[in-house]
Amino acid sequence: MSTIEKTAPETINHDLCPRFHRAVELIGKRWTGAVIQVLLGGPRRFNEILSAIPGISDRLLTERLRELEGENLIVRRVEAASPVRVTYELTCGGAELKEALDAIGRWAEKWISV
Amino acid sequence: MSTIEKTAPETINHDLCPRFHRAVELIGKRWTGAVIQVLLGGPRRFNEILSAIPGISDRLLTERLRELEGENLIVRRVEAASPVRVTYELTCGGAELKEALDAIGRWAEKWISV
Repeated sequence: MSTIEKTAPETINHDLCPRFHRAVELIGKRWTGAVIQVLLGGPRRFNEILSAIPGISDRLLTERLRELEGENLIVRRVEAASPVRVTYELTCGGAELKEALDAIGRWAEKWISV
Repeated sequence: MSTIEKTAPETINHDLCPRFHRAVELIGKRWTGAVIQVLLGGPRRFNEILSAIPGISDRLLTERLRELEGENLIVRRVEAASPVRVTYELTCGGAELKEALDAIGRWAEKWISV
């Protein structure tokens, strides 16, 4: 643990934290940030998410939604209507990613050239 | 652009932003967050970074440092001493990732189980 002490005291030490690793890998997966960002606007149907993210395919969106459901970041709701209406909605954990995604967005706007 | 209007007005729309995509993929790459976190404590030599991140290999750290240098997030400084002293240091762009990494860390501490 001696190496930690060299770090400035105001810095939170995520460098050794497996949770931090899992979180950045989760957020960093292609399209995950975009899907969460769309759902931050409220519950959405599959086709609404699909049309909000140019470039994502049906197959990839299905895959990402399943992964996010598996991580308890979104829930899939089936409403008993005719035809059946399926919506995707952020859990509290998913919604709280807003702060991190906004911080990444602000950084990207300033520092990433396209 | 009509799909954007469905999103709540307080939400920054990163979902269509290629910069945001590049940023999350950059940060999400294995060990990148950890390397930046260590360098937020100040300039470090290769072996200091290596020992601060359990589990990373020589080869992978070399690779990550080169990538981060290529993205202008760190600089490699060679001091003319004997033996030559090489340190790695964050650029302004790299240092400004602190806010995003801290936000991810706070989220991970709350929501990720290990």
